[in-house]
Amino acid sequence: MNYPNGVRPRANQSNRVKKTNNVQSYSNRGMSLEEDINATNEYYLATNKAIVHKKPTPIQIVRVHYPKRSAAVITEAYFQSKSTTDYNGIYKGKHIDFEAKETKNKTLFPLANFHDHQFSHMQQIVEHGGICFCLIRFTAMDETYFIEAKDILQAYEKMMQGGKKSLSYEDIKTKGEQIPLQFQARVNYLPIIDERFFS
Amino acid sequence: MNYPNGVRPRANQSNRVKKTNNVQSYSNRGMSLEEDINATNEYYLATNKAIVHKKPTPIQIVRVHYPKRSAAVITEAYFQSKSTTDYNGIYKGKHIDFEAKETKNKTLFPLANFHDHQFSHMQQIVEHGGICFCLIRFTAMDETYFIEAKDILQAYEKMMQGGKKSLSYEDIKTKGEQIPLQFQARVNYLPIIDERFFS
Repeated sequence: MNYPNGVRPRANQSNRVKKTNNVQSYSNRGMSLEEDINATNEYYLATNKAIVHKKPTPIQIVRVHYPKRSAAVITEAYFQSKSTTDYNGIYKGKHIDFEAKETKNKTLFPLANFHDHQFSHMQQIVEHGGICFCLIRFTAMDETYFIEAKDILQAYEKMMQGGKKSLSYEDIKTKGEQIPLQFQARVNYLPIIDERFFS
Repeated sequence: MNYPNGVRPRANQSNRVKKTNNVQSYSNRGMSLEEDINATNEYYLATNKAIVHKKPTPIQIVRVHYPKRSAAVITEAYFQSKSTTDYNGIYKGKHIDFEAKETKNKTLFPLANFHDHQFSHMQQIVEHGGICFCLIRFTAMDETYFIEAKDILQAYEKMMQGGKKSLSYEDIKTKGEQIPLQFQARVNYLPIIDERFFS
């Protein structure tokens, strides 16, 4: 297996892995959701299933130092807030666009995890016919869910009308779908897209 | 007209602009191709025609200082090379993906302007059914061209087999299409996509 960027599972783990239906089997590796998604996207890229990249963090560069005979060093820069989602790309000819979020909360996912810009971006992508969703991990239970942007936007609309400021764990379980952690495509979200958008 | 991010044409220019077929009419404003494309994408976004964003420059952050009561300052960071194109988004439900390049050369466009990663990225996008192209500006003539990724990839293939290391100005003029600089959507590339991919 060719893992781009040299990312691959730890050797002794690949030996003891057996096919199983236990959704917990690859959990607790100490990998963040972002690392899991990056590895998944690399696997998709290597197997030519989908082309998805994480967008770099937007940074405002203020000062750059150009030393002789070596690379330019940025010596003053600031983080900027994102106006889009973190990941986008193409799958089966369709534009896909998603955000990944982790929460330590056990009973709900606070909508404050999104910037306002991100809600309008998700709305725009949906309106233009893209496949837009969010991957949410409840770190306490080590459970990762796929939830469509339309469900997040519905909750956002309700919040703007004075409703609750979160999606409950139960809502996410009902409207979304759990993604069992796997070995190669660790957060294997494409089968859910197949089922929801291509069937 | 609502210009997001406060970017708008200079006031006295908007007064003296008249409808004309002269492709040079909005040239020599001292705007870079990137600025022109960003303004175009903002116009597309504001008029809900297409959702296209420039990807932030990838930066490797080494050191961050967290002063009390103010924003985090990145004090050491380095530029990383891009593995994808600069712009992507969605138009009429399709994934669009493009790169923008300027050259001072008057007779040819050197393929060395692309990273190797960018060729494979363009190849992948084309294979997966995305709309992939490049906007090339010859700054000496102030002419901007739309050229499809397939034509760039063909030139790249030839180069890899020992052929020439550039696309000639004539090639670009023949295979590509000139984009007349306009007032609102300054580098108005969507009509060319319509003509080539949706008709």
